[in-house]
Amino acid sequence: MDLSYFSDKLTAGLTQLHYGDQPTALYEPIRYIMDLGGKRIRPLLTLLGAHAFTDDLAPVLKPALGVEVFHNFTLLHDDIMDQAPLRRGQPTVHEKWNANVAILSGDVMLVRAYELFFDIRPELLPTILRRFSQTAAEVCEGQQWDMNFETETTVSIAQYLDMIRLKTAVLLGFALELGARLGGASAEDADHLRQFGTDIGLAFQLRDDLLDVYGDAATFGKRVGGDIVSDKKTFLLLTAQAQANDAQRATLARYIGQPVAEAEAKVQAVRAIYDELSIRPQTEVLINDYFQDALHHLERVGAPAARKEPLRQLALQLMERES
Amino acid sequence: MDLSYFSDKLTAGLTQLHYGDQPTALYEPIRYIMDLGGKRIRPLLTLLGAHAFTDDLAPVLKPALGVEVFHNFTLLHDDIMDQAPLRRGQPTVHEKWNANVAILSGDVMLVRAYELFFDIRPELLPTILRRFSQTAAEVCEGQQWDMNFETETTVSIAQYLDMIRLKTAVLLGFALELGARLGGASAEDADHLRQFGTDIGLAFQLRDDLLDVYGDAATFGKRVGGDIVSDKKTFLLLTAQAQANDAQRATLARYIGQPVAEAEAKVQAVRAIYDELSIRPQTEVLINDYFQDALHHLERVGAPAARKEPLRQLALQLMERES
Repeated sequence: MDLSYFSDKLTAGLTQLHYGDQPTALYEPIRYIMDLGGKRIRPLLTLLGAHAFTDDLAPVLKPALGVEVFHNFTLLHDDIMDQAPLRRGQPTVHEKWNANVAILSGDVMLVRAYELFFDIRPELLPTILRRFSQTAAEVCEGQQWDMNFETETTVSIAQYLDMIRLKTAVLLGFALELGARLGGASAEDADHLRQFGTDIGLAFQLRDDLLDVYGDAATFGKRVGGDIVSDKKTFLLLTAQAQANDAQRATLARYIGQPVAEAEAKVQAVRAIYDELSIRPQTEVLINDYFQDALHHLERVGAPAARKEPLRQLALQLMERES
Repeated sequence: MDLSYFSDKLTAGLTQLHYGDQPTALYEPIRYIMDLGGKRIRPLLTLLGAHAFTDDLAPVLKPALGVEVFHNFTLLHDDIMDQAPLRRGQPTVHEKWNANVAILSGDVMLVRAYELFFDIRPELLPTILRRFSQTAAEVCEGQQWDMNFETETTVSIAQYLDMIRLKTAVLLGFALELGARLGGASAEDADHLRQFGTDIGLAFQLRDDLLDVYGDAATFGKRVGGDIVSDKKTFLLLTAQAQANDAQRATLARYIGQPVAEAEAKVQAVRAIYDELSIRPQTEVLINDYFQDALHHLERVGAPAARKEPLRQLALQLMERES
């Protein structure tokens, strides 16, 4: 079964979603952000998680889209908080409309995300809603830690990894657990798929950190070096700060957190220290650790290898992506 | 059964609620706004709605508190949008912390509100969650209309009444419907209680509009005349604009929407026109219409009069309040 089989289902499902009509200032921004596109990884994981156990994906589609609507809600509100001007190359909602519209449209999106779960059969519904809500709160916790770290002088690597786990990974884990449960998986199998998703999520975010510094400007969607320019405390920077000798530490201190006239010079100077300290291979080792952990959990899921194959393929794609 | 019997249950329940611990920047604002107090009218309506049909209020408490958490979530986000400095005499969350903290804490509150419903027995859960979500979206729609009206030149009285129905009244209606359903009411009785609540909500908001202009500064919690100073398109102003003669219309136009140095002079001038046009008795007639409609729906609820008595009493209190 090709991944496009599942993607096509999602695309068709997304075009069918109705968020509301009036007032237009409330509902147009929802359609706008949902139509900006994206890889739709999370709902794809939900469909693939269910596919491991069943061919009947009809009852899985709406909850899968609920995860996507929720994800886009977090993007919408995060963009306000981060004062981001662009999302996927287009003006963010708070830029195109205003912050109030972005707050309120986001609120309705969270409500609409919940609504997409309510057709789940009643015996599964409470457990799934509890897990979804727990995950949603964790994603908010991750965003708050991320904001806290901007002004904290010392952030440990463990704290950073816990932040990206909450902000990014748990939702991928939940997307898979959701699919598994809807597909009829045992609690144990659902948990292995959840951990597979969480590990993939951690690897995915670390790969993002890496691409930001070492990506190809032509294929990477964002400006290369953006994290360095904005002093973002990524795994790369925190590791470099922990391992730097006195001279390297002094150089980092001259650039990080300082107003710098030449952004390109800053990126080059910091990247040079990363190179000296082998930060890239160290990050790749950690990414591969998480990826192997993920595959280990996938292997332990009690479903035929052929039914799990699309998941393995998607995981591989996410690891090899250049954007 | 005295109203304080139900209020005491709510107070005890609220102190037991746990929203989360870390990061504190996320969870402290939730405890802060929940501890600011308020009349707790909505969860009280839920308890009273259930009490009309059952003595077993134990399973009703958490969903009732869910309505209160949701209500406080809307206050938190509305205060950002309205740039309100104070809430119940204390600094608003976005003032005490910042707007980002207020956005994200509010998001988690909405999630926590949903969570308080998940113990509802599975056969009722989907219907109640659908109704709650519909109501939540309507409240957001009401807030968006309210914001739209600030910059619109012509707002009809019908549009205004529909806005306050969405922004305020439907949640009171839902609070009662929720209690009724949890108490075992028929769909018909639950709907009569919902309409009772919606009517009370409309009357309540119109009473608020009236108190803003004619309230006693000593007992009214807010500054008397605040709506006039801020050019708020209330029922009073819209009715006055619709009924004004040329001279009165010219006077209104000189004050409303204009920068005015003397706020007190503006309040007195607009109030004088309200007096000339008998806006106060006209508003009181409409309030009484809604109140009589509410009582009419309450009468039709198939429960003993004695069990409905606390609801009638609460409705009366809300109509007679001076703050």
